[in-house]
Amino acid sequence: MSFEFIENGSVTSVSGFLAAGVTAGFKRSGAPDFAMVYSETPADFAGVFTSCTFAAAPVRLCRKRVLQSDKLQAVIINSGNANACTGEQGLNAAQKSCEIAAEALNITPDKVAVASTGRIGVQMNMALIEKGVALATAALSDNGGNTAAEAIMTTDTLPKAAAVKVTVNGQTFNIGAMTKGAGMIDPHLTTPHATMICIITTDAKITKAQLQKILAVNADDSFNRITVDGDMSTNDTVLCLANGASGVDIVPDSPEEAAFAEALLAVMQNLARRMVLDGEGASKFVEIKVINARSKEDARKAAEAVGNSMLCKSAWFGNDPNWGRVVAALGYSGAQFDADKCDIYFDTIPVVKNGGDAGTPEADLLSTVKEREFTITCDFHDGDAEYWVWASDLTYEYVKINADYHT
Amino acid sequence: MSFEFIENGSVTSVSGFLAAGVTAGFKRSGAPDFAMVYSETPADFAGVFTSCTFAAAPVRLCRKRVLQSDKLQAVIINSGNANACTGEQGLNAAQKSCEIAAEALNITPDKVAVASTGRIGVQMNMALIEKGVALATAALSDNGGNTAAEAIMTTDTLPKAAAVKVTVNGQTFNIGAMTKGAGMIDPHLTTPHATMICIITTDAKITKAQLQKILAVNADDSFNRITVDGDMSTNDTVLCLANGASGVDIVPDSPEEAAFAEALLAVMQNLARRMVLDGEGASKFVEIKVINARSKEDARKAAEAVGNSMLCKSAWFGNDPNWGRVVAALGYSGAQFDADKCDIYFDTIPVVKNGGDAGTPEADLLSTVKEREFTITCDFHDGDAEYWVWASDLTYEYVKINADYHT
Repeated sequence: MSFEFIENGSVTSVSGFLAAGVTAGFKRSGAPDFAMVYSETPADFAGVFTSCTFAAAPVRLCRKRVLQSDKLQAVIINSGNANACTGEQGLNAAQKSCEIAAEALNITPDKVAVASTGRIGVQMNMALIEKGVALATAALSDNGGNTAAEAIMTTDTLPKAAAVKVTVNGQTFNIGAMTKGAGMIDPHLTTPHATMICIITTDAKITKAQLQKILAVNADDSFNRITVDGDMSTNDTVLCLANGASGVDIVPDSPEEAAFAEALLAVMQNLARRMVLDGEGASKFVEIKVINARSKEDARKAAEAVGNSMLCKSAWFGNDPNWGRVVAALGYSGAQFDADKCDIYFDTIPVVKNGGDAGTPEADLLSTVKEREFTITCDFHDGDAEYWVWASDLTYEYVKINADYHT
Repeated sequence: MSFEFIENGSVTSVSGFLAAGVTAGFKRSGAPDFAMVYSETPADFAGVFTSCTFAAAPVRLCRKRVLQSDKLQAVIINSGNANACTGEQGLNAAQKSCEIAAEALNITPDKVAVASTGRIGVQMNMALIEKGVALATAALSDNGGNTAAEAIMTTDTLPKAAAVKVTVNGQTFNIGAMTKGAGMIDPHLTTPHATMICIITTDAKITKAQLQKILAVNADDSFNRITVDGDMSTNDTVLCLANGASGVDIVPDSPEEAAFAEALLAVMQNLARRMVLDGEGASKFVEIKVINARSKEDARKAAEAVGNSMLCKSAWFGNDPNWGRVVAALGYSGAQFDADKCDIYFDTIPVVKNGGDAGTPEADLLSTVKEREFTITCDFHDGDAEYWVWASDLTYEYVKINADYHT
């Protein structure tokens, strides 16, 4: 099998999918803020969502779709209002939004899902939903994917869309996707967390059960590995629609299924990586790898503690090779390991050896931490489990964005 | 019983204790960086320390003292080098430091404890320890407590010392203390975490076992309740020395013991509060209270998630009444509660009612969040357990301090 990324790929690089991004009026700026993704035929689908106790109304609705609907045909996404902490009225608004879209598209409401991002605690302006649906329905196009990706942005500085063409056993199918999310990013999709929204399309033919399993595993290895600020959102949503238009059947446990899972992971990791690079105020992309740990859970705790440490993040911003902060974070992470056996590398340069200074001249470390991207590897020499996370740094710009966001 | 804070109180407001703060040369600035606290007679003592896996050499030494020494008579503290991640050489340095001090004071080394704060991963310059001990021994004085408090500062902008005079059943005794710590503050004293160092003196007569128990409980209700950046240190140390010079016997389960515990807590909370107010770059002091939770553990998780949230902290800095971020943090905290029953107040103003907007005009909320200090109360209506934490905000200055600290 092989796959290749499609130039300017998006959700509409996939047969049978149309999309649009329009300005409904949620954003004061007048930028596009409403997107629609539509499959010409009903699609199998799967979803993973925030594990936040205050799950937003659209998340609750999507969970219901996953449990109760056999097929989905459309997803609408608004940016500018999260419809979270909006109670019964919010749930009704989410439901009503689906009905409005269903009517415009001449399908049943149970085949429509909704995702929202923006301010928490504000009731949805249904007139804007009406407007968004009308404009988007009229604008649906088989090359609308990139416009849709723009319309779902909030504090993102760049739209994030991708698609791959997969070839396996002489057959080809496609996977397209778009995502948004730049702050409140530390997805733990329950099986994700961030305000991240990701809509994935594919023309492979795959059952809902298979797709749900693969999507959850892949979310754990992509969106759940990234952290901008350690804050999980009320609205994190990943939805994948599979319309079968390629005619390629993804038989369980077949080479096709393996190819599908691998290619899907590549798309999800590509977008996850770009979310970190475009994280609020981010100037660095740091991969933290913990290797040879006693258990994956120990490796995960250790990697996440470093990725979420305000002191480490500030040091990265400052091009500061202060490994003491990495060590401190590992030490309070709750991971079980032997401090005296721990080695740490910045890229391939030894920094810590047996829990103490490896003796590398600081100038050598500086050259690494000045890079836009680098890797911190922590070798526990204590087992064979590993885990990695991708993290951004903590910058003046992050504070500015989040101290000023409201006003 | 009653107690009152002593004006300009410090570790030397207590009978039989001498202290000094001097410049040994650890800090490039030439500011005082070495302190000594000395009891004229051997003192009972107790200690609580960081739970970080990479506990610094002085912490390991102090733990040994707690296990193996009956009495302590002196504590030396240097600021500018943490002696953490320094391996066997670091442990030897800590031990040697005690020997140097013991010789100067003409006591045995097992009666000396050492605490260090500063950069991680740098071997101790023993010549500076020699110099510090010599200067401090010569400078020991019964009014040296405030100078000692200055000498233990790192990024602190203000020295932090306090003392109380306690009266119970017609008898009086004193408790004095000093602390440092402005960043890497989120003590989980194991029973603490931060680079915080706190040295407490008392002239009450109390056994080591009693003191250890009371100190641990009080640490949980003071230093373990504060967070500046959620980063725990390798060096957190709280030591309390009780020399009995007042002649007041703290009999177990007596009114005297209750008075001692209460007054000690008041001193520790006073210092903990000032650590947050003086947190790196801090412009706000926010108390987060979670009440009517199912369990103290649920309340703790919820309160700590809000106190450590970069998004909440940025909002506080920005005078932003964005309660959505509070809700999001509660939601991902892992605390068990019913989102639809959750009420939130800023001071006494209702913000969230039953998990949704309480309808209070934003102008009313603004007046609260503009204050230097305010309280966020989260009422889960789901039990009777509660927990509170004290947190600072996330400011440009925090990032500046921690991006520039190294260089």
